[in-house]
Amino acid sequence: MKDYREILEAVQHHRMTVDEGVESLRHLDVEDLGFAQLDHHRSVRQGFPEVVYCEGKTPEQSAAILSRLGAAGQGPVLGTRANDQVFELVKQSVPDMQYDPLSRTVFLKRGIPSPIGDVAIVCAGTSDLPVAEEAAITAELMGAAVTRVTDVGVAGIHRLFAHLDTLYKARVLVVVAGMEGALVSVVAGLVHQPVIAVPTSVGYGTNFAGVTPLLSMLNTCSSGVGVVNIDNGFGAGYLAGMINRMGISA
Amino acid sequence: MKDYREILEAVQHHRMTVDEGVESLRHLDVEDLGFAQLDHHRSVRQGFPEVVYCEGKTPEQSAAILSRLGAAGQGPVLGTRANDQVFELVKQSVPDMQYDPLSRTVFLKRGIPSPIGDVAIVCAGTSDLPVAEEAAITAELMGAAVTRVTDVGVAGIHRLFAHLDTLYKARVLVVVAGMEGALVSVVAGLVHQPVIAVPTSVGYGTNFAGVTPLLSMLNTCSSGVGVVNIDNGFGAGYLAGMINRMGISA
Amino acid sequence: MKDYREILEAVQHHRMTVDEGVESLRHLDVEDLGFAQLDHHRSVRQGFPEVVYCEGKTPEQSAAILSRLGAAGQGPVLGTRANDQVFELVKQSVPDMQYDPLSRTVFLKRGIPSPIGDVAIVCAGTSDLPVAEEAAITAELMGAAVTRVTDVGVAGIHRLFAHLDTLYKARVLVVVAGMEGALVSVVAGLVHQPVIAVPTSVGYGTNFAGVTPLLSMLNTCSSGVGVVNIDNGFGAGYLAGMINRMGISA
Amino acid sequence: MKDYREILEAVQHHRMTVDEGVESLRHLDVEDLGFAQLDHHRSVRQGFPEVVYCEGKTPEQSAAILSRLGAAGQGPVLGTRANDQVFELVKQSVPDMQYDPLSRTVFLKRGIPSPIGDVAIVCAGTSDLPVAEEAAITAELMGAAVTRVTDVGVAGIHRLFAHLDTLYKARVLVVVAGMEGALVSVVAGLVHQPVIAVPTSVGYGTNFAGVTPLLSMLNTCSSGVGVVNIDNGFGAGYLAGMINRMGISA
Amino acid sequence: MKDYREILEAVQHHRMTVDEGVESLRHLDVEDLGFAQLDHHRSVRQGFPEVVYCEGKTPEQSAAILSRLGAAGQGPVLGTRANDQVFELVKQSVPDMQYDPLSRTVFLKRGIPSPIGDVAIVCAGTSDLPVAEEAAITAELMGAAVTRVTDVGVAGIHRLFAHLDTLYKARVLVVVAGMEGALVSVVAGLVHQPVIAVPTSVGYGTNFAGVTPLLSMLNTCSSGVGVVNIDNGFGAGYLAGMINRMGISA
Amino acid sequence: MKDYREILEAVQHHRMTVDEGVESLRHLDVEDLGFAQLDHHRSVRQGFPEVVYCEGKTPEQSAAILSRLGAAGQGPVLGTRANDQVFELVKQSVPDMQYDPLSRTVFLKRGIPSPIGDVAIVCAGTSDLPVAEEAAITAELMGAAVTRVTDVGVAGIHRLFAHLDTLYKARVLVVVAGMEGALVSVVAGLVHQPVIAVPTSVGYGTNFAGVTPLLSMLNTCSSGVGVVNIDNGFGAGYLAGMINRMGISA
Amino acid sequence: MKDYREILEAVQHHRMTVDEGVESLRHLDVEDLGFAQLDHHRSVRQGFPEVVYCEGKTPEQSAAILSRLGAAGQGPVLGTRANDQVFELVKQSVPDMQYDPLSRTVFLKRGIPSPIGDVAIVCAGTSDLPVAEEAAITAELMGAAVTRVTDVGVAGIHRLFAHLDTLYKARVLVVVAGMEGALVSVVAGLVHQPVIAVPTSVGYGTNFAGVTPLLSMLNTCSSGVGVVNIDNGFGAGYLAGMINRMGISA
Amino acid sequence: MKDYREILEAVQHHRMTVDEGVESLRHLDVEDLGFAQLDHHRSVRQGFPEVVYCEGKTPEQSAAILSRLGAAGQGPVLGTRANDQVFELVKQSVPDMQYDPLSRTVFLKRGIPSPIGDVAIVCAGTSDLPVAEEAAITAELMGAAVTRVTDVGVAGIHRLFAHLDTLYKARVLVVVAGMEGALVSVVAGLVHQPVIAVPTSVGYGTNFAGVTPLLSMLNTCSSGVGVVNIDNGFGAGYLAGMINRMGISA
Repeated sequence: MKDYREILEAVQHHRMTVDEGVESLRHLDVEDLGFAQLDHHRSVRQGFPEVVYCEGKTPEQSAAILSRLGAAGQGPVLGTRANDQVFELVKQSVPDMQYDPLSRTVFLKRGIPSPIGDVAIVCAGTSDLPVAEEAAITAELMGAAVTRVTDVGVAGIHRLFAHLDTLYKARVLVVVAGMEGALVSVVAGLVHQPVIAVPTSVGYGTNFAGVTPLLSMLNTCSSGVGVVNIDNGFGAGYLAGMINRMGISA
Repeated sequence: MKDYREILEAVQHHRMTVDEGVESLRHLDVEDLGFAQLDHHRSVRQGFPEVVYCEGKTPEQSAAILSRLGAAGQGPVLGTRANDQVFELVKQSVPDMQYDPLSRTVFLKRGIPSPIGDVAIVCAGTSDLPVAEEAAITAELMGAAVTRVTDVGVAGIHRLFAHLDTLYKARVLVVVAGMEGALVSVVAGLVHQPVIAVPTSVGYGTNFAGVTPLLSMLNTCSSGVGVVNIDNGFGAGYLAGMINRMGISA
Repeated sequence: MKDYREILEAVQHHRMTVDEGVESLRHLDVEDLGFAQLDHHRSVRQGFPEVVYCEGKTPEQSAAILSRLGAAGQGPVLGTRANDQVFELVKQSVPDMQYDPLSRTVFLKRGIPSPIGDVAIVCAGTSDLPVAEEAAITAELMGAAVTRVTDVGVAGIHRLFAHLDTLYKARVLVVVAGMEGALVSVVAGLVHQPVIAVPTSVGYGTNFAGVTPLLSMLNTCSSGVGVVNIDNGFGAGYLAGMINRMGISA
Repeated sequence: MKDYREILEAVQHHRMTVDEGVESLRHLDVEDLGFAQLDHHRSVRQGFPEVVYCEGKTPEQSAAILSRLGAAGQGPVLGTRANDQVFELVKQSVPDMQYDPLSRTVFLKRGIPSPIGDVAIVCAGTSDLPVAEEAAITAELMGAAVTRVTDVGVAGIHRLFAHLDTLYKARVLVVVAGMEGALVSVVAGLVHQPVIAVPTSVGYGTNFAGVTPLLSMLNTCSSGVGVVNIDNGFGAGYLAGMINRMGISA
Repeated sequence: MKDYREILEAVQHHRMTVDEGVESLRHLDVEDLGFAQLDHHRSVRQGFPEVVYCEGKTPEQSAAILSRLGAAGQGPVLGTRANDQVFELVKQSVPDMQYDPLSRTVFLKRGIPSPIGDVAIVCAGTSDLPVAEEAAITAELMGAAVTRVTDVGVAGIHRLFAHLDTLYKARVLVVVAGMEGALVSVVAGLVHQPVIAVPTSVGYGTNFAGVTPLLSMLNTCSSGVGVVNIDNGFGAGYLAGMINRMGISA
Repeated sequence: MKDYREILEAVQHHRMTVDEGVESLRHLDVEDLGFAQLDHHRSVRQGFPEVVYCEGKTPEQSAAILSRLGAAGQGPVLGTRANDQVFELVKQSVPDMQYDPLSRTVFLKRGIPSPIGDVAIVCAGTSDLPVAEEAAITAELMGAAVTRVTDVGVAGIHRLFAHLDTLYKARVLVVVAGMEGALVSVVAGLVHQPVIAVPTSVGYGTNFAGVTPLLSMLNTCSSGVGVVNIDNGFGAGYLAGMINRMGISA
Repeated sequence: MKDYREILEAVQHHRMTVDEGVESLRHLDVEDLGFAQLDHHRSVRQGFPEVVYCEGKTPEQSAAILSRLGAAGQGPVLGTRANDQVFELVKQSVPDMQYDPLSRTVFLKRGIPSPIGDVAIVCAGTSDLPVAEEAAITAELMGAAVTRVTDVGVAGIHRLFAHLDTLYKARVLVVVAGMEGALVSVVAGLVHQPVIAVPTSVGYGTNFAGVTPLLSMLNTCSSGVGVVNIDNGFGAGYLAGMINRMGISA
Repeated sequence: MKDYREILEAVQHHRMTVDEGVESLRHLDVEDLGFAQLDHHRSVRQGFPEVVYCEGKTPEQSAAILSRLGAAGQGPVLGTRANDQVFELVKQSVPDMQYDPLSRTVFLKRGIPSPIGDVAIVCAGTSDLPVAEEAAITAELMGAAVTRVTDVGVAGIHRLFAHLDTLYKARVLVVVAGMEGALVSVVAGLVHQPVIAVPTSVGYGTNFAGVTPLLSMLNTCSSGVGVVNIDNGFGAGYLAGMINRMGISA
């Protein structure tokens, strides 16, 4: 509530008129691009700038927003579900911008101190890698040290057990799985840290594009699991990044 | 096609008229109770008498059918989803009939040779026991030796691993689980025998009365799994019993 | 992997035979009640004893497991979806056991140091209170200091804003809402801490017993949200409790 | 019932035979194009000519109907879900016809008096703009003055609050949102005018192509909300246009 | 934004300290009952006091909130999904409170001027009457004159046509239907006023407790229709009441 | 269109005023009971009086409507989903009314000539009998001769084949089945008459209260099948009765 | 049962050996194309040759089956969901084959006597025409006289009423509608002949590719309606053709 | 548990250090390709090497895994949902690899003894052949003799009966069907061997891409049926192959 107090004080001391006070309350840090309201205040409020979800926007719209974010701040920038075309447009104005085609993320690693903590990204199968990598890049932009464990589905459970040490030493785990999503229950039953579960749309028939692993994860018999939307690697990486820095940076 | 041949020969040799032949083709072993057509031929055709699903029938109807089956044959009799009332009525005419209130099965252990093979019934939680027991009793009536493994859900996976020997030596396994049903994937990934998976309606919220473990089992990343309807312990026990006697009795 | 190392060393130094080693690997801390395998090792592995989900168990089964947990350890005990009958049975052997009828939890506050951190439980409406309270009690048994904020649905958003300070100072938030679940998006948009979202089955018609707020929470446009099953107050409280102690106790 | 009275009077006064009366009752204002029955009477009955939904029709069919409507009346004409091809065909015969590629509407602004009232079209994100614009154009063809508020999703709720004055002075609001659709609950909780809610298919995974915001809007805890089909900008704009002119034009 | 201006002015003129100003911003008109936050400001903001949805609350909770609303204001009070028990408790403290058992509403007709406008409540079948009556009572509490048209389902469409005059002279219509909900399409095709559609849970089998008429209404081929949740008579009556007074009271 | 012609002629010949003509058009055979509009004209229009669906009506409402229908006409009367209480009330005023508790139908066999044609009602299992009997009674009230074939599910397909002659000689068949509903495909593949398929809610788990047999019947690989709602014996009997009399009575 | 009798007699009179009898029973009229078993006996059994559903088959497979049917019999031939390519291949061997691109049917009008009866195909909108035409062509191949009524949706119900005479004089009606499918309820409420309802996948959003009109039709409040699968014009035309010839040809 | 015993003994006899023992437990037969963990131990554990599901992998990834499997072992290799491109890449390093374009399988027939037992693959329609062939090839790679029965849908049930001898002599049957899947119920009712049911996505409208036959098969009234995921020919062939060798090879 600090901002409101500042405005009240400014009005009281006649450094600001009442009308100006009302205006100030309404136009804090909102910059208007015409088709999008940028929210620069967010990096203060949430510790991370607004993320651009590029699907459903034209490449030009996505690139314009990303370029503006790249120009305006000192922190990292992230665009998800992007493509080559967005990247080509953005890097004209922000040459340091990077693109990872596997996870389809456009990002700028800026203002990130050396990685802290340990976020383990555990991935059931090769086909789940794009979602896992979106989570990993997001967590890295949040400042996390990330460990990747890949292709450890429960059909051959000893493959997972070969990585037990990695699981045990993480601060928080992101488990990415399609098919029936049983990996979440097994991992969460083994560790005592928070597990963020990401169902993927990998599968066919009654997988229903990820509904089956989603339901499986929501009904897990193991404790300590929070679930995000299907294929939402970003959401999982963001939440894991938040949790990872607890007691370290905050 | 033997029966048809017999009828053709009887007609050819005038031991039977054409009209009698037509009748014979139509009325083989079908006995009419008014509200139900009993199918005594089934025990020849499928090696097990017709099973009575008591839900949706009046206790009197269920008891009448079970009594008739008890009187007519030499083999076992089974009624599922029964209750005390059905049992009380049946045992008046068939005193050897038994009742298991946990699984709600009424049954007659008759004409069953000493148990053969090994059917392991693996059950995730205490709440899944009624369905598991329906499977166990059915398999026993099919002539199988049955081993029960209970409360070995994946949230504490070492509980399951304590029973690995039991799993390995079974001829066929029935895995019964509610919640997210991950136990099926773990067990089927460990063994090299057929696994019959039974989802149960144990759970709440997005469990959707068993739909979640059903979908999980249909999408298992492990091989060698066949799935039956939610809570269908009978169906799993029957199929396991069939498979169990292959190469032994047949 | 410490236990396995210990066993290997014991076998190497002939303090244990090979057969004993194999047995040790298999029977670690698993106590058999006949109908349930207790998992005492869990409090070491996950920092919290096994929780008993009483629905689908007979009161006698629930009480027997809870009593055994009460007798065996030094830590807290928790039974969810319990009722009067379970409580009456348990307190005969464990007199310190408590019962909260609103949330239907039976619990023993034992071995809990003074509360740490700050878990805010934010609840949209009066009808959501049972689920919110299950979360609160669980988090308290995990050692958390808990702040409750009640009846702050978005239909009158200034009611929520009156509690902004409370939201801002929490380490982790649990948001409990039925109807359309919009409270999660609003709260998570305001704070920069992890939010655990619990959809409840409060509503009618197309609420579909909580499916609508569940879907709403999974699709939130705000970041930093993990979702649990419908009405799963326990799961949310447990995950929040885990996150709350990060950087403090661990 | 006026028309029937007129016919009855004409028959009574022998200005019309009985057979002619029967015919008159049946062929009022229905013009037959072969593949479509045009309903010119509609502009009298409902105050707006028939609108052409172009999806599922060939461009030639759509263009023929639109051209006929353009030739026949004095009022506005509207085709939704159209494309370039339809527009190119129509403007050959109706040169004043316009095309908006964002919302894919073909329209003729004809016979519309100066805009009245105030319809606010509030849009959650950039990706929802095509649906919002379909609503806006429809309302304008209904004679409404339209105010557009864009990119004010609840993840940064102060962006919405910067537009409170606009919301308060509208006669009726159309709120367009995908994702979880929480914007509707927040807006309808703030204003005391009718809100028409339009879920869009913007989102992924469990968004289910708009089902999630639809359900969210139907279950809103705020009062005064009517919902239309997913992506149905036309339907919302039409209903808002109807309401907007109440007490002004009618 | 008037209240904020007032507070700013009070602070400027030192009639209020800055701390008091911050407090004022936060505690406007929110009264705390312990389990519920009453929102008295709502009647100013939305022109109608908060409505109490009694399902999921104890009768005591519902009665306490209704009594407090009855004591606090000058306007009408409404509780929906109530029962005898709630009513008996409330009328002890608010003797003028009324109860309609058909629609299960508890209400206080207070401060309502003589009825204005015309809201037609059109109801498909006898079984839909409880929902229709909830809509009617709500609209009346909003100040509307209400006309009821009952049992005019489309299976005998001439029954509807006998009421055409009533439909034509209404300012806004509420159409209540279960089964397949076709009545909405027929009515909305006949009139040129806004239609609020209420699906009811009347039907069986694939009616899915109202989902079928809901879908039917959302997909209506007629224009000018807004839909509310299944069985949500209150929501329809409230929205109709809002629309009805446009250009009259506002 | 005959009635309209009559009215036109009456008006033309001044046997009726214009106002009377308008009234006549609107009040043809509609009798108002307050909570229900009786449609006596229906027996002329459709050859069968209005049928009363008693579920969702109070016994008093159902009985009042049935009594009025019993008093008003010369043809049969039918109430479905009734119960003892309705029957007891109706027979006080209409002593000839009958009640069948299996199908829960109240009916009056009045004005029905001797049965014509042949409607075969084929029923898969004993539990499907209530629905089958509702179909049978309805068809009989439509004037049909009805043949019942019971308990011929496809698990023992020779039971069905024993009734082939009955199937072949019917004019139209009603097939009633729950579970997976495969009986419809088998029967419709054998005969060359119209088949009306009725899914029943008999089954459990993924039967989803009849959705599975409904879907099965809609997707049948056999031709000549029309499907009605789950458990809608009345609808099937009515349609079969209509078809049965084609070329005989009409 | 005639064929079996013939075989029995042939065996009895030694015109056939027993082995030949068994063979005869098994290979009646089944001709093997390798990838498809043609069923020539069907035209005797059901009065219409097998229909080829071309979707999911290669054009070559479809064409081969259609050509074989064209060569083998004297009656009509029909292929549905075909395309140009299939037609080009078929007409090489069967020059009289025709193709209708609107409904995507390939057909041979052979051995059809002059049209009898009257099947009315009533179609809600222009976009529903392909399905309606598939029904019309099928019914014509079944020997029916067909009347087409197009674009008479309920949004302008007087358009339908202009065709009442056509509806009244049909022997059976096929009603084809997408969107909310209300046309079925209105038509079936007006006529006393059987109505075959065909939901189409025309619509968007919650239309769910035809599920909404399907549900609407299954729940119709009007009697005498049988429903077929979404977009199944063939199935409706076939059933209507069957019913149409009752009492005329049979 | 043999491997663990061996390691314990090796450690006890100092043939292995404790550290080596821990390592041995963790790295048994897991070979790391970077993006995939190969599981060579599987052929020992389950009697068949890991199968590669190629969908969702790049052709290069699929080919690399298949090539490695081809190089590493002595047994068969199988890749499902492959395409030409995968095959072209693989055969460069493994020239004996084969490709079946109908079922889209890449496979290596290596180390398979002469076929044993009898697996009947029964297929409802021509369009189901790709799934059926995937099952057949899988079973053959498992060592089974396979008999194919094609195009025997229940619409012409005598086509199925012509193959009764084939059905009776199989050890296990795989039944593949789309549409309504009734073939499973009919076949399982006729035989007394295990039936593995495979729903296919063949159909349209309410077939819902295979959900209808899946539900039909799960609800079959016949006994002895296990179901696999939609279009999962591999899963069915694998399970059938397992069952087929029981009592022969094992």
